[in-house]
Amino acid sequence: MLLAKVMGTVVSSQKHAKFQGMKLFLIQPCGSSDKKLVPQGGSLVAVDCVTCGVGDLVLFTQGSSARMTECTKDSPVDAVIIGIVDAVEVHGKPLGKP
Amino acid sequence: MLLAKVMGTVVSSQKHAKFQGMKLFLIQPCGSSDKKLVPQGGSLVAVDCVTCGVGDLVLFTQGSSARMTECTKDSPVDAVIIGIVDAVEVHGKPLGKP
Amino acid sequence: MLLAKVMGTVVSSQKHAKFQGMKLFLIQPCGSSDKKLVPQGGSLVAVDCVTCGVGDLVLFTQGSSARMTECTKDSPVDAVIIGIVDAVEVHGKPLGKP
Amino acid sequence: MLLAKVMGTVVSSQKHAKFQGMKLFLIQPCGSSDKKLVPQGGSLVAVDCVTCGVGDLVLFTQGSSARMTECTKDSPVDAVIIGIVDAVEVHGKPLGKP
Amino acid sequence: MLLAKVMGTVVSSQKHAKFQGMKLFLIQPCGSSDKKLVPQGGSLVAVDCVTCGVGDLVLFTQGSSARMTECTKDSPVDAVIIGIVDAVEVHGKPLGKP
Repeated sequence: MLLAKVMGTVVSSQKHAKFQGMKLFLIQPCGSSDKKLVPQGGSLVAVDCVTCGVGDLVLFTQGSSARMTECTKDSPVDAVIIGIVDAVEVHGKPLGKP
Repeated sequence: MLLAKVMGTVVSSQKHAKFQGMKLFLIQPCGSSDKKLVPQGGSLVAVDCVTCGVGDLVLFTQGSSARMTECTKDSPVDAVIIGIVDAVEVHGKPLGKP
Repeated sequence: MLLAKVMGTVVSSQKHAKFQGMKLFLIQPCGSSDKKLVPQGGSLVAVDCVTCGVGDLVLFTQGSSARMTECTKDSPVDAVIIGIVDAVEVHGKPLGKP
Repeated sequence: MLLAKVMGTVVSSQKHAKFQGMKLFLIQPCGSSDKKLVPQGGSLVAVDCVTCGVGDLVLFTQGSSARMTECTKDSPVDAVIIGIVDAVEVHGKPLGKP
Repeated sequence: MLLAKVMGTVVSSQKHAKFQGMKLFLIQPCGSSDKKLVPQGGSLVAVDCVTCGVGDLVLFTQGSSARMTECTKDSPVDAVIIGIVDAVEVHGKPLGKP
């Protein structure tokens, strides 16, 4: 899984039927650098299954494992947000959020 | 999923039987940078299942999840376009399209 | 899927039983840049299921979807060539081949 | 599989039900360079199934194969730690740990 | 599949049960550049199922396809060596080994 910051929302009216009702977020993956979290790699779009919001630090899963939730089962989804992150601790100290 | 701009079409007469009748597009993935969408990574080829066209901003799925649509089921397809994007909003403002 | 140019052949006498009789090609992925196709990323090895040859521009599939052809079914194969590309057109004009 | 150093822990109270009770570690992939192991690529989050700890050098598996352990079966998990590494030897000599 | 050079061995005493008895190699992926094979991307760890040794040029498979051999079936393995490479030929001439 990767850490990511929720950046915004994606609106699509003409889409595959299984995406009806799904909440799509634009997210920016983050990684640790020294004592804080920084952007890591390019942005992507993930389905929300934990009711997160813009600005949240989240954890998301990619690939076939992204279909292992009730809301993404058997759907053409390759990225799903599976947790809201409270803290990331390195050597007992929390990393600064991005 | 990734955002992408549809760049062109791919013509192949000698191909695997399951690709007969499939529409193949050359697409360029995009990501957010400051207040607009910019090219991100290399171009690739995806099957269309939402009747999009050249110039559209789309959402596509990769890997085994790309086989979770009616038109790609059980096919050797690893990328499928699953939505046409109307808008991407960050902090309430739409990102400029690529 | 990605576009690639077939560069050469790979010879392996000591290999997994399911690779017996498979044709293995060294391929170089390509992407669009301005008005032509250029090398994109590193080279890899793919199984041929469309009877292509060295010098051809082809389309190949990666991951579990590479097992969705008759010749790769249930095999430890993660890349398969599924089409020979006649042309890639951007804005109605063919891209120069690599 | 990739080698990685366990960097810290990830705390998430609002998460997918299947993550309840799972230990989540922030890990930094490593690769060989000359005679030692060095950071390679960005950090990620993996589930622990071998009772490792911060500071350990571990081996982790990604993708659908990450669901092939008892603790991750059928879960939306795409990275799992499957071993604690005692030594990596190149030409009979151990590589320095990161 | 990717070409790789077998660099060394990985020793892990505390590991997932399915890894008992598996031979783990540190490998360095290679790609073609001009007339020889050169390192390409970072090193990784793969299971051996063709009885190769350190110094060999091999072919390996990644992802779910890495579980399609007898020795890796249903195991949390995402990379397996499936062949020892005798030669890679480009335009009828063998590429220099790395």
